[in-house]
Amino acid sequence: MKILVINCGSSSLKYQLFDMDGEKMLAKGICEAIGTDASSAKGSTEDGRSFKYEMGQIEIPDHKVAFNIVKEALTTGSCKVIDDLSEISAIGHRVVQGGDLFTESVLVTDEVVEGIRSLIPLAPLHNAAHVLGIEACQELFGKDVPEVTVFDNAFHSTMPPESYLFALPYKYYEEDHVRRYGAHGTSHRFVSARAAELVGKPLSELKMITCHLGNGASVTAIKDGKVLDTSMGLTPLDGFMMGTRCGGVDPSAITYIMDKHNISPKEMDRIMNKESGVLGISGYHSDDRVVRDAAANGNARCKLARDMQRYQVRKFIGAYTAAMDGVDVIVFTGGLGENCQDIRADICDNLSFLGIKIDHDKNEELLHGAEGELTLPGCPVRVFVIPTNEELAIARDTKAIVEALAK
Amino acid sequence: MKILVINCGSSSLKYQLFDMDGEKMLAKGICEAIGTDASSAKGSTEDGRSFKYEMGQIEIPDHKVAFNIVKEALTTGSCKVIDDLSEISAIGHRVVQGGDLFTESVLVTDEVVEGIRSLIPLAPLHNAAHVLGIEACQELFGKDVPEVTVFDNAFHSTMPPESYLFALPYKYYEEDHVRRYGAHGTSHRFVSARAAELVGKPLSELKMITCHLGNGASVTAIKDGKVLDTSMGLTPLDGFMMGTRCGGVDPSAITYIMDKHNISPKEMDRIMNKESGVLGISGYHSDDRVVRDAAANGNARCKLARDMQRYQVRKFIGAYTAAMDGVDVIVFTGGLGENCQDIRADICDNLSFLGIKIDHDKNEELLHGAEGELTLPGCPVRVFVIPTNEELAIARDTKAIVEALAK
Repeated sequence: MKILVINCGSSSLKYQLFDMDGEKMLAKGICEAIGTDASSAKGSTEDGRSFKYEMGQIEIPDHKVAFNIVKEALTTGSCKVIDDLSEISAIGHRVVQGGDLFTESVLVTDEVVEGIRSLIPLAPLHNAAHVLGIEACQELFGKDVPEVTVFDNAFHSTMPPESYLFALPYKYYEEDHVRRYGAHGTSHRFVSARAAELVGKPLSELKMITCHLGNGASVTAIKDGKVLDTSMGLTPLDGFMMGTRCGGVDPSAITYIMDKHNISPKEMDRIMNKESGVLGISGYHSDDRVVRDAAANGNARCKLARDMQRYQVRKFIGAYTAAMDGVDVIVFTGGLGENCQDIRADICDNLSFLGIKIDHDKNEELLHGAEGELTLPGCPVRVFVIPTNEELAIARDTKAIVEALAK
Repeated sequence: MKILVINCGSSSLKYQLFDMDGEKMLAKGICEAIGTDASSAKGSTEDGRSFKYEMGQIEIPDHKVAFNIVKEALTTGSCKVIDDLSEISAIGHRVVQGGDLFTESVLVTDEVVEGIRSLIPLAPLHNAAHVLGIEACQELFGKDVPEVTVFDNAFHSTMPPESYLFALPYKYYEEDHVRRYGAHGTSHRFVSARAAELVGKPLSELKMITCHLGNGASVTAIKDGKVLDTSMGLTPLDGFMMGTRCGGVDPSAITYIMDKHNISPKEMDRIMNKESGVLGISGYHSDDRVVRDAAANGNARCKLARDMQRYQVRKFIGAYTAAMDGVDVIVFTGGLGENCQDIRADICDNLSFLGIKIDHDKNEELLHGAEGELTLPGCPVRVFVIPTNEELAIARDTKAIVEALAK
């Protein structure tokens, strides 16, 4: 069974085609800057072929055109991996915001599309793009090819009110649906399931903290097999500092700055999402690779930004350990979690009160998609590096739902 | 040496008179609703005498009149404790916001007053009132009586940038002084010093977490004798939920609500400070005694508000344990910390991963100003209840500065 996984952003379209016999990724690619005069597209196949249209070489005025580029890439030319779209059995869509309407992956129906549309106010850029993507697929593949939506926050839907409520007037929850929804749920679900496998115990018997550290980043506490708490909130801004996002800050600092500089809520939101975090503190860059090099070359603000970030992540691990009254397993994943050995070492070395002792040689080796355990034998808390694969998780959900349909 | 301690709010004036020989409180009182037609005043003496002017019985149009009421109460009538103001050797003022200008208690000079005035933007209601109070005292006592200011955030001035910076664009720190200052510092300092005495080790050798839980509430991490981190931020809003304050919430939830309902920064600040927290969630009351009774009688939202609050405090204890890589001593103080045995029990019982086991009988007894240890003998982390006394701490600082002057 071949499944196409779609991640449709406001100006981008990412895809991966899986052959689910053996869970093999056949091809993947991305169309970027859709709707601008700087559109580009590139892709590659599992066996090493690739294509690339730089900006200026291609026009992608809208998502429909982008989907046609994907179709061409998959079925014709140098990167062809299938003869016809009809070989694709189902499509899985990543959807950022399922609100409290969707607590698990579902088959797309008109009602589902309406539900995703109704949540646009909570995720304006993302959910609007997801609806576009679903509709473009229906047009391209026909309504008979099943589509499945996999929601970023569905895994977090088990949180109790103590975790998901903000202590604001209750009406904002009741009337405006303002609460913690979390994000990265598909990643937290994927790596927590894998960690349970590695430990050889069911997830339901483990207290686990999964750290998805990337340009966006979140930490999740999983107890009794269910998410107890997660750091992202109403939107993916909350938690700790990220590449360009501030994470949690004193809310009165926000109103103070807005009042002093006459900044609108939308503009403040942009500042908090795009100009803050590692970029805001370093004043240099949001990409950890760049900031790490600058810090190594003596840039004090770059060092400070990285010190702050790892300190904040460590505090979340401590907070969630207290939330669960203990922790058995900690997982690092995501771009930084999988590749920044210094961040992992600093966090783990400063959690010695939990009995964590890591193998520093192994920590230096577990990079670039490698999976393994960081902790030395006998540690009461085990720490793993587990590469995440949200696309595969989406493909698996899609397969499961489509197979259940057939029964 | 007799020292008068003054806590001057925007519409209130609290005082305590100490005889520092034996650190005995001679008299205390409060003028409330100053500048309104609902002014009132009351006071009492250490030997049990008291006075009370209900609203309507007294006019207090401004702080000068309030200070005259204090003078009359101390030197004349049924509550007289001294013959003349000249018996008072010095005055200690509580000041909420010392910004990064004041890192310890200081003798009042014109420059100090200007400094406090310059920080009014960071604490509009409080610092403006403190300047009023200092000037009213200078008028009443004459400039020869030394006045000392004790800053709420001075104890927190040792925080490293990793703790005190918010991950917003750096210019807001550099140009607007937006950072974490913390509050309740005098209380955290007082109880941490006392806890070190009880443990019989210098504070500099202990990792300590002090929980000041009252209508306003904050948690502080103290390592190497210095504050490493504290939960309150630019203003006393940040941290966890309090009586009417929201504490930390997703900053994007704030801009979302402001944008949706067209709420100004000042109005949002008022909502977050006055209508949120336990009041906002319960929709019932901000006072824990009232909310606890309602919860016991089946009010689910009141129960939820209390569950949320203790859960959030517990997460801060966990976060700060991770921040210090361990904890030796935890202290409960403040109105809730000293009197809410169920909150203490719930927090401690869910920190068993730290080896904490409390004596539940003792926890039921340590109320209403009692001091003692909650943990059973042999626990690796010791938990204490220590009544705070910010006024005495202010009096002590004042005495020390005045005595140093005389040398």
